[in-house]
Amino acid sequence: MAGSSFGTIFRITTWGESHGPALGVVVDGCPAGLSLCEEDFLPMMNRRRPNGGAMSTKRNEADAVEILSGTFEGKTTGTPISLLIRNTDQHSKDYGNLASVYRPGHADFGFSTKYGIRDYRGGGRSSGRETAARVAAGVIAEKILQELGVTFSTVVTSIGGHPFEEAGDYVAACRAEGDSCGSEVVCTVSGMPAGIGDPVFEKLDANLAKAIMSIGAVKALDIGDGRDVVKMKGSENNDAFRMNGDTPETVTNHCGGILGGMSTGGDIVLRVSFKPTPSISSSQQTVSADGEDTEIAIHGRHDPVIGPRAAVVVEAMTAIVLLDSLLLNMPARLSSVTEFYNA
Amino acid sequence: MAGSSFGTIFRITTWGESHGPALGVVVDGCPAGLSLCEEDFLPMMNRRRPNGGAMSTKRNEADAVEILSGTFEGKTTGTPISLLIRNTDQHSKDYGNLASVYRPGHADFGFSTKYGIRDYRGGGRSSGRETAARVAAGVIAEKILQELGVTFSTVVTSIGGHPFEEAGDYVAACRAEGDSCGSEVVCTVSGMPAGIGDPVFEKLDANLAKAIMSIGAVKALDIGDGRDVVKMKGSENNDAFRMNGDTPETVTNHCGGILGGMSTGGDIVLRVSFKPTPSISSSQQTVSADGEDTEIAIHGRHDPVIGPRAAVVVEAMTAIVLLDSLLLNMPARLSSVTEFYNA
Amino acid sequence: MAGSSFGTIFRITTWGESHGPALGVVVDGCPAGLSLCEEDFLPMMNRRRPNGGAMSTKRNEADAVEILSGTFEGKTTGTPISLLIRNTDQHSKDYGNLASVYRPGHADFGFSTKYGIRDYRGGGRSSGRETAARVAAGVIAEKILQELGVTFSTVVTSIGGHPFEEAGDYVAACRAEGDSCGSEVVCTVSGMPAGIGDPVFEKLDANLAKAIMSIGAVKALDIGDGRDVVKMKGSENNDAFRMNGDTPETVTNHCGGILGGMSTGGDIVLRVSFKPTPSISSSQQTVSADGEDTEIAIHGRHDPVIGPRAAVVVEAMTAIVLLDSLLLNMPARLSSVTEFYNA
Amino acid sequence: MAGSSFGTIFRITTWGESHGPALGVVVDGCPAGLSLCEEDFLPMMNRRRPNGGAMSTKRNEADAVEILSGTFEGKTTGTPISLLIRNTDQHSKDYGNLASVYRPGHADFGFSTKYGIRDYRGGGRSSGRETAARVAAGVIAEKILQELGVTFSTVVTSIGGHPFEEAGDYVAACRAEGDSCGSEVVCTVSGMPAGIGDPVFEKLDANLAKAIMSIGAVKALDIGDGRDVVKMKGSENNDAFRMNGDTPETVTNHCGGILGGMSTGGDIVLRVSFKPTPSISSSQQTVSADGEDTEIAIHGRHDPVIGPRAAVVVEAMTAIVLLDSLLLNMPARLSSVTEFYNA
Repeated sequence: MAGSSFGTIFRITTWGESHGPALGVVVDGCPAGLSLCEEDFLPMMNRRRPNGGAMSTKRNEADAVEILSGTFEGKTTGTPISLLIRNTDQHSKDYGNLASVYRPGHADFGFSTKYGIRDYRGGGRSSGRETAARVAAGVIAEKILQELGVTFSTVVTSIGGHPFEEAGDYVAACRAEGDSCGSEVVCTVSGMPAGIGDPVFEKLDANLAKAIMSIGAVKALDIGDGRDVVKMKGSENNDAFRMNGDTPETVTNHCGGILGGMSTGGDIVLRVSFKPTPSISSSQQTVSADGEDTEIAIHGRHDPVIGPRAAVVVEAMTAIVLLDSLLLNMPARLSSVTEFYNA
Repeated sequence: MAGSSFGTIFRITTWGESHGPALGVVVDGCPAGLSLCEEDFLPMMNRRRPNGGAMSTKRNEADAVEILSGTFEGKTTGTPISLLIRNTDQHSKDYGNLASVYRPGHADFGFSTKYGIRDYRGGGRSSGRETAARVAAGVIAEKILQELGVTFSTVVTSIGGHPFEEAGDYVAACRAEGDSCGSEVVCTVSGMPAGIGDPVFEKLDANLAKAIMSIGAVKALDIGDGRDVVKMKGSENNDAFRMNGDTPETVTNHCGGILGGMSTGGDIVLRVSFKPTPSISSSQQTVSADGEDTEIAIHGRHDPVIGPRAAVVVEAMTAIVLLDSLLLNMPARLSSVTEFYNA
Repeated sequence: MAGSSFGTIFRITTWGESHGPALGVVVDGCPAGLSLCEEDFLPMMNRRRPNGGAMSTKRNEADAVEILSGTFEGKTTGTPISLLIRNTDQHSKDYGNLASVYRPGHADFGFSTKYGIRDYRGGGRSSGRETAARVAAGVIAEKILQELGVTFSTVVTSIGGHPFEEAGDYVAACRAEGDSCGSEVVCTVSGMPAGIGDPVFEKLDANLAKAIMSIGAVKALDIGDGRDVVKMKGSENNDAFRMNGDTPETVTNHCGGILGGMSTGGDIVLRVSFKPTPSISSSQQTVSADGEDTEIAIHGRHDPVIGPRAAVVVEAMTAIVLLDSLLLNMPARLSSVTEFYNA
Repeated sequence: MAGSSFGTIFRITTWGESHGPALGVVVDGCPAGLSLCEEDFLPMMNRRRPNGGAMSTKRNEADAVEILSGTFEGKTTGTPISLLIRNTDQHSKDYGNLASVYRPGHADFGFSTKYGIRDYRGGGRSSGRETAARVAAGVIAEKILQELGVTFSTVVTSIGGHPFEEAGDYVAACRAEGDSCGSEVVCTVSGMPAGIGDPVFEKLDANLAKAIMSIGAVKALDIGDGRDVVKMKGSENNDAFRMNGDTPETVTNHCGGILGGMSTGGDIVLRVSFKPTPSISSSQQTVSADGEDTEIAIHGRHDPVIGPRAAVVVEAMTAIVLLDSLLLNMPARLSSVTEFYNA
């Protein structure tokens, strides 16, 4: 099926494999009149790039984003924006031994079972590189959100249970053992207007959940207090309302900024759990495509932990959902529609 | 926006408020030839009904499901199946005092902010009653899944941190205090074929996440080991493959039956965290629609804990996602398409 | 597949067969705050009803529309509006002889081939009765369009090549011969703002074409000069622009109010060709479900010509497309979005 | 809104302007296992290219299609296929005088009104060049359809009312006068299985109508006898069924291969009316973006008639609709689903 598009009015369509000539994204439905140039992509794309430190891969792509369509004289025109990112630092031969073996923790077996054919080079379509296209699209979404006063703070809060700042030795030890470690990312969004999202299937948290869970290696999502609500009482978990000037606000934010599928105006708080990188160099039991039990040790260039580079992907997907929800919300009231067209 | 439909090929559209004459669902895209009668709905609908015990509301709807279209001589015809559930036990006058106050933990403020108008009787569209329509649709999905050998086990695993079997006193105490408590539901699906779901945005877990998070009061979703992966190493979290006869299988199931967005053939395991019922009778701070600080104590008939009645809703939404994914998967290979049409 | 929904933001989902207990439509995404009561449906529903004259069937349904959800105190709330229309005047036994024969010009053969099962009573889902649900939905769309100054004029322009006013004898003669006749409907929409519709696949005329061609028995659609453009030169067909006060307008309207997929602000003109009613009482060659050549003469209650009752269906589907396009257009410019949220 | 995607399971997303660096299309949902290389695109792309004769523009793009993703070792993998076509022969300076004037018969006024900004070079997104991307996508659809025995014959049947073969002098005369002429294209599809398409909004002809009407300059679509049915009687228009061996067939094909929204197994016949090229060199009245009446004579390189180059675009869009409908049809029967998964 067509599974590479996301969003309704602001819709992105990504394409590309890890080891093809390029990957990219078509951003369709972007409102016209936004200033946009290729330099705008650098800060977020750089957050996704390996930083050369102990926590990241040695593969290092420039990840320059080329704008092929959708802008004119430095502004978006309302037509689809095609963004291209070239692959330049592939080592395809690293993957030759993966052609006939299913890596544990990876999509390999699923791909072969579903499609009967598999581009095994670097994970193909399931590579983390696919997220470069998401981040590029997220840049555009965030630029618009900024004009609406919506801002993001996205941090790695835990690596293997250790606070990010204290996790360096832990990661180094994992890597030395040929192993990898899990991580947690928290994304906090401020300035979101209240009343955004829909009450039933298109709840704001439902769309965020799909967006976040569509990122490879995510295994859990918590909104606000998340899983902790199981042990709470209603009197603890409910957020009291008080007036702040003319605006109702929640005094606490256990709900993570969303009630009944709609934003409260408070901070939206998402907690995302990433599994350990499945590519590890220590030996693992697995099976071959020919149906034989075998073992595998995965060499090549892999991050030992996913969260640090994936944090910006969480932010990008969040931005895409929030923007689409804001655009979809505009005709919610008849008075808004009549005012728009009769003005 | 149109936010009351879910699914692509097998698509449901729910409608109805808590205190209107009826609610219902249109199930469109159901394959033709399925035996279906009104009695088929009873078992699952009964699981959603209050059982009269300490854990449930006193409101008791028969929840009989009427089939208005889409079947002929006891079988589905491929046309939309319209299901109607009448509301018969409303106490609308219980809600008169809610017209001008926003209940903490509820969608009231969101509704007023978004739409400028709100059906305040019993939560209106955001009432738990809306889930009756989901369950009715889930019955149809499960009937088809059964023919494919896919089965469900859905249980309440925790209430307020206590195992379900030991939680009776805890719930009673909460209720006596005018309070409510959180709960956790685990849904396990067996027999799902491998390779179902798509590699990028239409990942099986992404669609499950949207489906589950669209259920009111859900604040977290864990797939497989879920949040626990943060503290795991790759060597612990990866599930080794071994051949079971001709079929590759994972020896463990940390991944919860989904890798890279596609099913592994192992059990799919979803852990769902429900917040405490927000309607509590003890006094809470809130604001009025007129913008004044005030207090509210919510009387009326409310479940003190959501999980026991919502477990079947989790199962229904899961079934709907799985069936839709199975149907969407059929043309994944060209050889399947040519075989289908050239046979 | 799920094929009974239409629209993106303003989306309708119809259900129901000719000879079931009822049919209906769920109208989702209707802006909140529209006055709506059951009487509002009468005028358009009456235009679709047989008038008892020579041009219409003897089956006569009251077609009262019941509102089951989505309004509160006489206004829409933004939640799905479920509309129910009961079937009360069925003569199912008229159709017993159709169980095993495919009627020429009908969907019978397609249904059996596709689904392997068929509700043969009165055409089942393919009955003209399905359009009652479309008209009910169109009432809501038109009510909103009226508030935006968009108005409709829909007329039968031809029956069997004769002007509508002069066709009475022709229709009577067809009927006497056990035959039926074709017809043409023209729908003209005034007051549509300019710039509505999208430049590529979501062209306004593309969506209108889908909507109109989805009405049973339609075999051609012309926009503006339509098929006549084949014989025209560019200098004849192009509509010159001139200023009318501050507003550019086309001096002529060969284009039928749409250029490049977007409205010009001029009248939108759709010309719709309906085939003759396929149910005729004279004998026809056909085949049985058992694969035998046979003959059939279709008795029962049928309109001898489709256009007079279908004109309002054309109008309803047009209204639904135009409203959806207007709602989708609101976030086209960044300045509209920032103004909406920063106001 | 996002208006550059078309299709449900087999979905294309086009992007690109006439005078940007490139244009392209992402083909998502293509079944895995199809042989595909860049040479496969040449024949259909060449049919769309100007042939250097009297009927076509002097702009001549190589229209080589580059495959950037979605294939591996010469076969499709089920992942999105990104196709790139570079623009190499632009004369952007030809269009400088169009920056401030709305060309009659073009989308210019619509673009400015909708978006407040317009890429005026060569029509920008509304250029006929956009159709190169559609044809590239159509190549893939047709390759699959060929494996199912579905074949196409698409011809220009009329130019300005003259048969194509006799129209040379007419076109030359139009051109000499600084004028252009209309044209008609007929696309006939053979080998389509019966029962494809859905009975209500997703009728096969409804989706074809949207697809065809989304091609620039199309003003009318006739299915089968099309507009002529208005003058026909039911006894003439109905196609009798007779058995052909084991298969019911229509003896005639007035219906154009579609009844009740589903294919009959007979030839699908679409008649498409193209308006004259709106870009003409003789002087026309129009208005400027500043709101002044003015005149314009459009120079540059334009086809004097659209049909000859657009015929392959009609065929491509038809192929895309038919393939998507075939894929969507696979799960129509429960027995097909159970056979697929239980085999």
